[in-house]
Amino acid sequence: MSVTAPTGFAAAGVTAGLKKSGGLDLAIVSNLGPLANAATVFTSNRCKANPILWSQQVMSDGQVSAIVLNSGGANCYTGTIGFQTTHATAEAVADQLGVSAGDVLVCSTGLIGEQLDLGKLTAGVFDAGLALKSDTAISAEAGLAAAQAIMTTDTKPKQAVQVSPAGWTIGGMAKGAGMLAPGLATMLVVITTDAVLTSAQLDAALREATRVTFDRLDSDGCMSTNDTVSLLASGASGVEADPAAFAAALTELCRDLTLQLQGDAEGASHDVAISVRNAAAESEAVTVARAVSRSNLFKAAIYGNDPNWGRVLAAVGTISEADAAFDPYNIDVAINGIQVCTAGEPDQPRDLVDLTPRAVSVVIDLHAGTAGATIWTNDLTHDYVEENSAYSS
Amino acid sequence: MSVTAPTGFAAAGVTAGLKKSGGLDLAIVSNLGPLANAATVFTSNRCKANPILWSQQVMSDGQVSAIVLNSGGANCYTGTIGFQTTHATAEAVADQLGVSAGDVLVCSTGLIGEQLDLGKLTAGVFDAGLALKSDTAISAEAGLAAAQAIMTTDTKPKQAVQVSPAGWTIGGMAKGAGMLAPGLATMLVVITTDAVLTSAQLDAALREATRVTFDRLDSDGCMSTNDTVSLLASGASGVEADPAAFAAALTELCRDLTLQLQGDAEGASHDVAISVRNAAAESEAVTVARAVSRSNLFKAAIYGNDPNWGRVLAAVGTISEADAAFDPYNIDVAINGIQVCTAGEPDQPRDLVDLTPRAVSVVIDLHAGTAGATIWTNDLTHDYVEENSAYSS
Repeated sequence: MSVTAPTGFAAAGVTAGLKKSGGLDLAIVSNLGPLANAATVFTSNRCKANPILWSQQVMSDGQVSAIVLNSGGANCYTGTIGFQTTHATAEAVADQLGVSAGDVLVCSTGLIGEQLDLGKLTAGVFDAGLALKSDTAISAEAGLAAAQAIMTTDTKPKQAVQVSPAGWTIGGMAKGAGMLAPGLATMLVVITTDAVLTSAQLDAALREATRVTFDRLDSDGCMSTNDTVSLLASGASGVEADPAAFAAALTELCRDLTLQLQGDAEGASHDVAISVRNAAAESEAVTVARAVSRSNLFKAAIYGNDPNWGRVLAAVGTISEADAAFDPYNIDVAINGIQVCTAGEPDQPRDLVDLTPRAVSVVIDLHAGTAGATIWTNDLTHDYVEENSAYSS
Repeated sequence: MSVTAPTGFAAAGVTAGLKKSGGLDLAIVSNLGPLANAATVFTSNRCKANPILWSQQVMSDGQVSAIVLNSGGANCYTGTIGFQTTHATAEAVADQLGVSAGDVLVCSTGLIGEQLDLGKLTAGVFDAGLALKSDTAISAEAGLAAAQAIMTTDTKPKQAVQVSPAGWTIGGMAKGAGMLAPGLATMLVVITTDAVLTSAQLDAALREATRVTFDRLDSDGCMSTNDTVSLLASGASGVEADPAAFAAALTELCRDLTLQLQGDAEGASHDVAISVRNAAAESEAVTVARAVSRSNLFKAAIYGNDPNWGRVLAAVGTISEADAAFDPYNIDVAINGIQVCTAGEPDQPRDLVDLTPRAVSVVIDLHAGTAGATIWTNDLTHDYVEENSAYSS
C-alpha cells in the first residue's frame, strides 16, 4: 500500500512508451478531495529541470489537484520546447480530470538534455485518465502501478504507509537509485494523506521530515536536477490531525522510504550509516558525516570489507575549523561496534571488524559537544561504475 | 634526471623493508650547499600526520639540510609513539650526514593508523647514508632510485627538470596515485635547485607554482593527511635567479609533474581536463570545475565513453550563487571539441563526441566574466574500485 492507502486518492501507472524497456513509465496521482492542500520540497540544484520550474509556479497557491510523473527522460536542459512539453502535459492531465492545469504538478526523471516525446506523453496521460476513472483506481494495485511507473534504475518499487489511531493515514511512494544526494529535497517522492491540514501545516511538517530523512541520504554525492518531494492532503478522513503527531508519523514514513532508497542504490553492496556524535552543533555533525560519505576511498574500502579507519579520519580532516569544531587528535572511531581508534590512536585491532553484513555502522565521536546526526550512504562498487558507465541514464 | 640534476644535491633510494613488496622504500635527498634555503607547502587537512607536525617545526627557520621520505606507512594517527618515530628518524639522518636534526624534513606515505618499524627505518637511514657518501650519489641513477623509493601504488617514478639559460637548474620528483586532491599542497614532491634564492623567495615561488598546478589536480576528491611539496635550494650554481623567471620555470616543472601524476592515477583510463571559461573570478572557475571533477556520475560516464553532458551541468548546479555567479540556463558545454550544449539547450548531437582517446577535454563557458581555470581529474573505473577495495593502502 502506498499513495492510495489514505482515502480520497486515485492512482494509475501506464506504459506511454518513453522507456526503452517498454515498462510502465507514466503515473498520475489524483487528489479527489474534498481538500486540495499540498506542500513540496524541490532540489536546491540551480540547474533545475523544466518540470521543477513549472511545479514551482503551481505551488504558489499551495493547491494541487493531481501530480503526473514520467520516467524515460528528465526534461532538463531542453529549453523552451521542453518547458512547453511540461506545460502541455499538465494541460492534458487537467483535461482528463476536469481540474485546472495550474493545479497539476509535473515530475520527470531520466536522461538530461533530450526532448521528451509529447505525443507519447499525451497518449499516456489519456490512458492514465481512463484508468483513474475505473473502480480500481483507489486500490493498492493502482498505487503499486504508479510506484512502478516512476522507477528508473530502481530494482523494486518503494512504498510506505503510516496509520494513525486518530483516524488519518499517510501513504507514500518513492523512486531513486542514482544521483542520490539532496540539497533540500531528493529523488521523486509522492506522499498522500487524508488528514485535514492546511498547506502551511503540510509545508512545515514536510520540511521537518525531509530535513532528517531524505536530506540525510547521500548515496553517491550527486545532486539531481529534478528532485521533488510532494505531499498532498485530501482531507477525506474528516479528521483534523495534531500537527506534531502528523509530523512524527510523516518523518517515520520518510525514514522508511529513505532506507528503501538506500537499500536499492545503484550497484551498492553495503548500506552504511555514518553517525557523528558529540558535535558542537547538529549542522556540524551533518557536515562531518557527509564528508565521510563522499570519500571514494572510504567507500571503496567498505566494498572490499576493509575497515580502513584512516580514510574516515582523512575525510573528517578536510572540514575547516569554521565548518566544524573538533580537535583532530581527540576523535574516536568505531566500525560495526569495534572501537578501532580512540583519541586519534589505534585502539582495537582492525581485524576484529566484520564487514561481511550489508549493514555497516560507522560512529565518529568528536568530543566537541552534545549534538549528533546520521548520514546514510552506500559503498563504491564495480556495479556502481558499471551501471553508470555502460549506458546513459 | 630529477633531484640530482641541479648541482649541490645527492640522493639515495634503498630498501628498508617497510614495503611488503620488498622494493625500494626509503629515500634521502641531501642538500650539499653552500645554501640550505627551503620552502614547503603542506596539506591543509586538519588531520595531519606526524611527519607533517615535525616538518612544520623544521620549517620555522626556512633552513633544510636534508629530507628523508619513506613509503610503507603514513605514520598518521599513531599518537606520541608515532611522533617519536619521526623524531628518531630525523636524528638518524642528522647523525649520518653530520647536520642538525632540526634541519631534516620527514615525509611518510602509506596506510594510516599503523606504527612504522623504527628499527627498519634507522637501518634504512644507515644504508642510505652510506650510499650518499659514494661517488654516484649525485648521479641521475641516484635521483631515480630516490624517485622509485617513494612510490606506493604508482606504476612509474615521476621526474622532471627545467634548465635555465641563466645558469641554474630545477629538478623534481613526485609520488602519488590515490588520495589525489589537494588543499594547499598535494602528494609527496621534492624539488631541488642550485639557484641562489632566499627562503622567502623560494616560498613565494612555490606557492605561486603549486596554486595553479598540484592544487588543480583532483583525481579522486580525497585529500591526504601527509601531502608535502618541498623546495630545496643549494645555491651551488652561484647564480642569483630572477624571481619571476624562476617562478615561471618552477611552475612549468610542477605542471609537468602534475600531469605525470594524473597520467598514473590509480585505475584511471582517461585523463580529463575540465576548463571553465568566462567566470566572474578565477576562484569561481576553480570551484565550478572542481565540482564537476568530483561527480562520480560524470566520471563513470567518461569511463564508459559516454559524453553525458547533463551530468556536467547537474554538478555545476550544485554550486551556490554565493560561490559562483552564473545563469544556469546560459551555459555552454563542449566535450572533446564538440559543442554539445549551447545556452542550456542541446546543440551538436552527443554521438559526434569521440571519447576513445585517453585525453578528454571538457570546456564549460559560464558567460559571467573573463576569468578561467582548469582542473585535472580522471575517470571512475572498475580498476579504481578494485585497487582501493582489494587491500589497505
